[in-house]
Amino acid sequence: MPLSNLKMSRRIRRTPFTDKVEFHGVTGFTVVNHTLLPKAFQHSVEEDYWHLRENVQVWDVGCQRQVQISGPDAEKLVQWITPRDLSRATPGKCLYVPLITENAGLINDPVLLKISENKFWLSIADSDVLLWVRGLALGAKLNVEINEPDVWPLAVQGPKAAQVMAEIFGPKIRAIKFFNFGWFDFEDSKQLIARSGYSKQGGFEIYLEGSKYGSRLWEAIFEAGKKYNIRPGSPNLIERIEAGLLSYGNEMTLEDNPLECGLSQYCDFSNENDFIGKKTLSSIANQGIQRQIRGIRFRGEPMEACSIPWPVTSKKTKTVIGKITSGIYSPRLNTNIGLSMIKSDHWDPGTEVRVHTNKSTFQDGYVCDLPFSD
Amino acid sequence: MPLSNLKMSRRIRRTPFTDKVEFHGVTGFTVVNHTLLPKAFQHSVEEDYWHLRENVQVWDVGCQRQVQISGPDAEKLVQWITPRDLSRATPGKCLYVPLITENAGLINDPVLLKISENKFWLSIADSDVLLWVRGLALGAKLNVEINEPDVWPLAVQGPKAAQVMAEIFGPKIRAIKFFNFGWFDFEDSKQLIARSGYSKQGGFEIYLEGSKYGSRLWEAIFEAGKKYNIRPGSPNLIERIEAGLLSYGNEMTLEDNPLECGLSQYCDFSNENDFIGKKTLSSIANQGIQRQIRGIRFRGEPMEACSIPWPVTSKKTKTVIGKITSGIYSPRLNTNIGLSMIKSDHWDPGTEVRVHTNKSTFQDGYVCDLPFSD
Repeated sequence: MPLSNLKMSRRIRRTPFTDKVEFHGVTGFTVVNHTLLPKAFQHSVEEDYWHLRENVQVWDVGCQRQVQISGPDAEKLVQWITPRDLSRATPGKCLYVPLITENAGLINDPVLLKISENKFWLSIADSDVLLWVRGLALGAKLNVEINEPDVWPLAVQGPKAAQVMAEIFGPKIRAIKFFNFGWFDFEDSKQLIARSGYSKQGGFEIYLEGSKYGSRLWEAIFEAGKKYNIRPGSPNLIERIEAGLLSYGNEMTLEDNPLECGLSQYCDFSNENDFIGKKTLSSIANQGIQRQIRGIRFRGEPMEACSIPWPVTSKKTKTVIGKITSGIYSPRLNTNIGLSMIKSDHWDPGTEVRVHTNKSTFQDGYVCDLPFSD
Repeated sequence: MPLSNLKMSRRIRRTPFTDKVEFHGVTGFTVVNHTLLPKAFQHSVEEDYWHLRENVQVWDVGCQRQVQISGPDAEKLVQWITPRDLSRATPGKCLYVPLITENAGLINDPVLLKISENKFWLSIADSDVLLWVRGLALGAKLNVEINEPDVWPLAVQGPKAAQVMAEIFGPKIRAIKFFNFGWFDFEDSKQLIARSGYSKQGGFEIYLEGSKYGSRLWEAIFEAGKKYNIRPGSPNLIERIEAGLLSYGNEMTLEDNPLECGLSQYCDFSNENDFIGKKTLSSIANQGIQRQIRGIRFRGEPMEACSIPWPVTSKKTKTVIGKITSGIYSPRLNTNIGLSMIKSDHWDPGTEVRVHTNKSTFQDGYVCDLPFSD
């Protein structure tokens, strides 16, 4: 895959942290929600992986824009768009909520934050959820207000994240449990901070409200992080795949349903719970799915990140049984690893497969459960 | 602005032409509709500009995805989403249709193709119109089917485009008038071809249906184009700005309404015409807009493409009166040029302004009408 320059324009939005990210020598971006997501600095994915597991990193995940839904019908709308039962949602909790269409295809997989009784944030992956929920609300004449506030998440990730955060926000930050959030002072503002993030190394996401604080928040974190060997980073592909964390647009699309993506724990079919796509998804649940997401371990030279899906065939039947949508070499597991939807006849752990990393060669491998075990 | 590498993944979709584009040595991409849009090959923007004005280019604009709306309520839905009166729309015509919210903010500015009485395509700019119209249809319980077909536009642009196209599709292609379309044979398929494109140099857009034909269509065009000095290209920033062609996400966003963007000829407020946002947009029309898109000509060294908006201040009042969202040097007009919303007190042609191309310097310039005149 040749390297290509990303051409910048106003359409590809900068975050309140982009100036800082450039100052730190960013070398690669991707685009999520019409917004820059830094993906690489001076170090390799592998060097960043080891650093993340042992230290602390700051990630500009401002691209995780918030869709704010408020007003008398806010709760009704939020429950309508996800199969997850939200009846016991309370302020202070983060909830992972798959969003689906009437055909049960995945639209997005945001984290829902209940800010107050009639006000919610959806912290989204890469699709215009803003337009989806505005369309629904307008069509169904719901009494809600929907917008994209001036909120830009910044993630502090890694085993030393709590130490850095405590220096800035005080020791109370340590009391926040996983997938909970609280409010903390920064300068003259109150900021929402959650124990969360797109890694399994632990950490926090600061939902920075107010672009004007961006540079100073970044500086405060770097200052506090100096003695913990802090570095700028980004969601790490090796770490994410090992942990079995899915990515919307890669593992999950409109063509996939939540059951295929292993998200059945977020689907509630009880009578009390009504949502878009319930009829279709219930029917799929009753009939049983034909494919599901799995891990694949495979041999060969250490692979760089999969940029075009790698077809997976059965060693026995020689037929195509899936495709790896995210894959890379894991230096810790000492093998190539990937995430793939796998057809039901072949999804049992241990099934022997071939991974076609290019048109002329393949590597032997086998199916495994997620997350990848040591 | 440092150069940055675009990190590839399945989430950033390839088109049926991406392999060819890479073969031709693409050096820069942007991302539109979660899809790669090539922006640069071996030549500079200026060299490509002159080439486009004198020869013929092929542009992979597969990112202009189609939102297909079909079924008994299709016409009703399509009229609902745009201020443009579609009562006289007929198959064979392309219609530029701004889409707006209930607050009159622009959601997208697609080209509408009426395929048949109950089937429409929206050829979209960079936002998930698919989710917007699916949300509206589901909320309002409309009897329509909405999807994204396997259609990927390829543009053939420049003064010699008709000659190249005639060699492949026969002389009948020359009879298609501007913003009309017809159906033409390619191998065993019928393809929709329109006289249109994101340049003022003339040309065609082939709405390729069927990814499998992509490589062979590209090859056929290059073979026929050899003697016309054909080259791969992309929407050219110099040419686009000179022509006053707006870009969604750059000049137009949810924060701008169609009247501010100079699109009043596409807004019909008659009683018979009902659409989302009519009340708000009528009220804005009655009260008069406070700003509108204008051209700016300004001095100084030839500028490279504007990647972060350049503030525009009044030379007289020293206040901020706009910002250039797309700007570059025009070698033909021998001046820097840009597109900017300008406040009403300052929008008269000839008004003297200062363009702040970076924090420490500014260039003198003045307001002008669009398109830029020679």
